[in-house]
Amino acid sequence: MKIILVGASGTIGQAVERELAERHQVIRVGRSSGDYQVDIRDTASIRQLFQAIGKFDALVAATGSVHFGALAEMQAEQFAVGLNDKLMGQVNLLLIGREFINDGGSFTFTSGVLSDDPIVAGTSASMVNGALNSFVKAAAIELPRGLRVNIVSPTVLVEAMDSYGPFFRGFKPVPAVDVALAYAKSVEGKQTGQIYTVG
Amino acid sequence: MKIILVGASGTIGQAVERELAERHQVIRVGRSSGDYQVDIRDTASIRQLFQAIGKFDALVAATGSVHFGALAEMQAEQFAVGLNDKLMGQVNLLLIGREFINDGGSFTFTSGVLSDDPIVAGTSASMVNGALNSFVKAAAIELPRGLRVNIVSPTVLVEAMDSYGPFFRGFKPVPAVDVALAYAKSVEGKQTGQIYTVG
Ligand SMILES: NC(=O)c1ccc[n+]([C@@H]2O[C@H](COP(=O)([O-])OP(=O)(O)OC[C@H]3O[C@@H](n4cnc5c(N)ncnc54)[C@H](OP(=O)(O)O)[C@@H]3O)[C@@H](O)[C@H]2O)c1
Ligand SMILES: NC(=O)c1ccc[n+]([C@@H]2O[C@H](COP(=O)([O-])OP(=O)(O)OC[C@H]3O[C@@H](n4cnc5c(N)ncnc54)[C@H](OP(=O)(O)O)[C@@H]3O)[C@@H](O)[C@H]2O)c1
Repeated sequence: MKIILVGASGTIGQAVERELAERHQVIRVGRSSGDYQVDIRDTASIRQLFQAIGKFDALVAATGSVHFGALAEMQAEQFAVGLNDKLMGQVNLLLIGREFINDGGSFTFTSGVLSDDPIVAGTSASMVNGALNSFVKAAAIELPRGLRVNIVSPTVLVEAMDSYGPFFRGFKPVPAVDVALAYAKSVEGKQTGQIYTVG
Repeated sequence: MKIILVGASGTIGQAVERELAERHQVIRVGRSSGDYQVDIRDTASIRQLFQAIGKFDALVAATGSVHFGALAEMQAEQFAVGLNDKLMGQVNLLLIGREFINDGGSFTFTSGVLSDDPIVAGTSASMVNGALNSFVKAAAIELPRGLRVNIVSPTVLVEAMDSYGPFFRGFKPVPAVDVALAYAKSVEGKQTGQIYTVG
């Protein structure tokens, strides 16, 4: 399969590449790194990416930023960061990418544990993850041509504990190599509308 | 209690008013109807509403629009409708209303069954409902001064079946009077961070 991996240089992306590259052609995409660049906040940039790459069989997005901060200090602007980046960035990869994907192809997105298990300073992450999970369940029933969409919802990664540890006390971290399996299940399996929780 | 009811003229709002007005002072708010007017898509309008009403004990939002339409015909603009109206409209009622609410007060929002049980043409509704449910879980753990936030997630209402029936085949509708009870549980109970599903 020809697989587009957005966020290939990231903590999750690197592990997904290792898992998928053994069996597939993986096209590495990042904001500044990789074989191709895209800014998922910008629909014109997304369209250019797909035009440059052409037809493909699967897209994995292991990317997406939100504002982390105390709710007391957040207003609409801070929530807009995550809505424009992690939420609509990934949704737009589907809305535009569906024009370029081969029949039977798949989209696999990334949310995270905070949709259901909140932490202090994580209201925007929770909101965006909940939005993505429900979007995927709904979009799956309307996609044509055997197209599929799933989402991986990991808990915090072992590899991210140096930076995220203080925010995730009591969470049992999972290794990136285990998280990567869920992306393989989505891409190489046949299910759709699934939320693959890891952790 | 002094309770602000946004969406008082609506299918759900009318039933909530009947339930709460027996025991409380209910201030009816709508976009064009009611004791006060607000456009929840506009933060300046929301601020004016709270400045006009002053201190209060509970806010109930039984309002919020999204674009219903075939996923095949939707792009980012159609998703923006629901993000700006039903999602951030309700979130902004909390972000701004918290400056005016009395200690121990509550916010009660409205999502809906589509977060978990999708229908054709409902991807934006699913997204927004999922976002709201997860936002409420997260915001609840950060609110100060004993403030609470919950959300009511009803299935389709008996009273709405004339218009929504064709989209909700196989869903068992609930009467508005039952849905209204969940709002009373949120306002007059003491729980926080709850998703009260009805139906
Ligand atoms: N790490 C965790 O523990 C964890 C747990 C649960 C969920 N998640 C979620 O998993 C996703 C990836 O997390 P991560 O920790 O692996 O990320 P990361 O290490 O910060 O890597 C981010 C990746 O996304 C790319 N990127 C950043 N902004 C972009 C943009 N605007 N457009 C396109 N690409 C962009 C980066 O490219 P460049 O390197 O070229 O800038 C990089 O490849 C996020 O949604 C995160 O919330 C992470
Ligand atoms: N009806 C159902 O079966 C059902 C089921 C599950 C969930 N829900 C959800 O419950 C909520 C209310 O639904 P409903 O059917 O009761 O609504 P509705 O009958 O259409 O009434 C909408 C109410 O919201 C007000 N409103 C509309 N736009 C507004 C804005 N921009 N700013 C402030 N107020 C505004 C209207 O005021 P005016 O009358 O003054 O214009 C009216 O009071 C929605 O979020 C809906 O998705 C409904």
